[in-house]
Amino acid sequence: MLQEIAEQPAVLETTINEEQEKVTRIGDVIRQADIDLIVLVARGSSDNASLFGRYLLEVTTGIPVSLCAPSVFTLYDANLRLKRALVIGVSQSGEGTDINHVLDRAKAAGAMTLGITNEAASTMAGIVDETLLIHAGRERSVAATKTYTGQMLHFYLLAAAIGNRRIEVRRIPELAARALELTPQVEEIVQRYSFMENCVVVGRGYNYGNSYELALKLMETCYVVAERFSSADFFHGPLAIVERRFPVILFGPAGVTRDSSIDLLNRLHELHADCLSITNDQEIAKLSSRTLFVEGVEDEILSPIPFIIPAQLFAAYLSAAKGIDADAPRSLAKVTKTL
Amino acid sequence: MLQEIAEQPAVLETTINEEQEKVTRIGDVIRQADIDLIVLVARGSSDNASLFGRYLLEVTTGIPVSLCAPSVFTLYDANLRLKRALVIGVSQSGEGTDINHVLDRAKAAGAMTLGITNEAASTMAGIVDETLLIHAGRERSVAATKTYTGQMLHFYLLAAAIGNRRIEVRRIPELAARALELTPQVEEIVQRYSFMENCVVVGRGYNYGNSYELALKLMETCYVVAERFSSADFFHGPLAIVERRFPVILFGPAGVTRDSSIDLLNRLHELHADCLSITNDQEIAKLSSRTLFVEGVEDEILSPIPFIIPAQLFAAYLSAAKGIDADAPRSLAKVTKTL
Repeated sequence: MLQEIAEQPAVLETTINEEQEKVTRIGDVIRQADIDLIVLVARGSSDNASLFGRYLLEVTTGIPVSLCAPSVFTLYDANLRLKRALVIGVSQSGEGTDINHVLDRAKAAGAMTLGITNEAASTMAGIVDETLLIHAGRERSVAATKTYTGQMLHFYLLAAAIGNRRIEVRRIPELAARALELTPQVEEIVQRYSFMENCVVVGRGYNYGNSYELALKLMETCYVVAERFSSADFFHGPLAIVERRFPVILFGPAGVTRDSSIDLLNRLHELHADCLSITNDQEIAKLSSRTLFVEGVEDEILSPIPFIIPAQLFAAYLSAAKGIDADAPRSLAKVTKTL
Repeated sequence: MLQEIAEQPAVLETTINEEQEKVTRIGDVIRQADIDLIVLVARGSSDNASLFGRYLLEVTTGIPVSLCAPSVFTLYDANLRLKRALVIGVSQSGEGTDINHVLDRAKAAGAMTLGITNEAASTMAGIVDETLLIHAGRERSVAATKTYTGQMLHFYLLAAAIGNRRIEVRRIPELAARALELTPQVEEIVQRYSFMENCVVVGRGYNYGNSYELALKLMETCYVVAERFSSADFFHGPLAIVERRFPVILFGPAGVTRDSSIDLLNRLHELHADCLSITNDQEIAKLSSRTLFVEGVEDEILSPIPFIIPAQLFAAYLSAAKGIDADAPRSLAKVTKTL
């Protein structure tokens, strides 16, 4: 897992070099089509990447995005109106049975289909109109890391190709490399959390998917009961679980979500919670119990990939501190085939 | 909270009597309009009711549904293509600032708008094209119960009015009354969970929203760190947190999700987890450590309201067993105004 985390700058660089031209061409096709809905179909970490993709695509393209509930197709056998929809399957292996079933059905309903996957020869690649390939090499750890950021990268490439907003995608590999420099600091900070059994992970907007992803990593590699919320939802009830020294991990970038991060930190301070922030903002750092400060991110839109990297490292080192094998957690398999 | 839980059959009955005709008329308008997307906008318990509404509307009407991310509008200031969309705000108070902001923006973008609320004179009712009123009377407990099922009921009325599937909405109040008969049994079963600190709540399809709702109730009224998952997602990582005697609560109706409930129960049995099922299926009951058996539900589509009632009772009695005031949990306010 640590090795695969470290490979990310290279994977991102290769993926941009190999895929950008194709994605730009696909973007042109989408711009000319009368698309008024994007549906993202995924499970697990891919679903978390899609949660990021949802915000990014809505904000940058103006096309509404729906995160698919596969059982609507697989169990309830519904036929949805998808004639003017772009349906994007997201799966590391490309072998998620339910995901592929939805893609088949969407195609039959007249939708345009794309697949974001790490496996060019997968079943998914055979179904979709176009495959967006992550060039990550085989991912061996059960805990997805390099394919998660690879999927996020493809959402950036798509957003840049469909929307009108300039996104500096080429800066991402360098930002990922700088985030990796936090490794020794993460290794040290993790010690404090060795016996953590519960925690809450908070993120909002572009970093909302990251809060789901870190929570999932903490569940699967550290056996921590980790809740995930947006800072907005957190005030609707879940805040009641926070007591003195309760651990909260916040993705708190500078940008439009900054004020709600600061409100939350102030409230958590009153409750004497323990708050670890992953941030690039001095004020947020000052209000937190502990900080992993990410350098070089100037625009919030580019924060999600460099922000998840210290979080992945946190899960990997915490796993080790707890004496767990992060690459082969109990009860789990790498490819999950649900119907 | 217990009193408001008990009011539900009457609230549901009144709401059907007062609203069905209006909803049928609105359904006719929607059927004739060229709607190819429904967007649901909500927070907290209303968002959980919407999660149910999402499955119900997609399956029965064939129109894709997106659960809105309000910050796309409120923080990122995006303009979405909503000309052919029906946008439905769901808010008990009708005063959720962000929800109302999204409704304003959706209206400006040319969408048809509806509001599902308990307050006829609310800000939301003043914004939307049509208001679907819950006739619950004032809800005093911070923990929403009767407005949650009232919102679900409106989704049934809408689904019946837009789609072609016959739904026996008129049976719901009676099913709710029968579910209330589980009260003494819940009161007894709760004792076992007095010192529960973590748990996982699982539901799928029509009962997926219920798993979010019970988890929220457990967090806000019992301070339990309660995770919520679909049984499908649960196999993607979170299963690793389950250890011997770990408490899992399952919404397991007879119907299309039954097989995945049984798969999950078998897996949980191997892991020696403690599984409490809310079910109307003998096999699921047999595989569970403990069961709240809901009588009278013959069709899965009608299970969500009678199934949430023992869950609400569970949260209320557990709260009492833990010495917490369920009506005024620490750190929370009844109306939350987020931007």
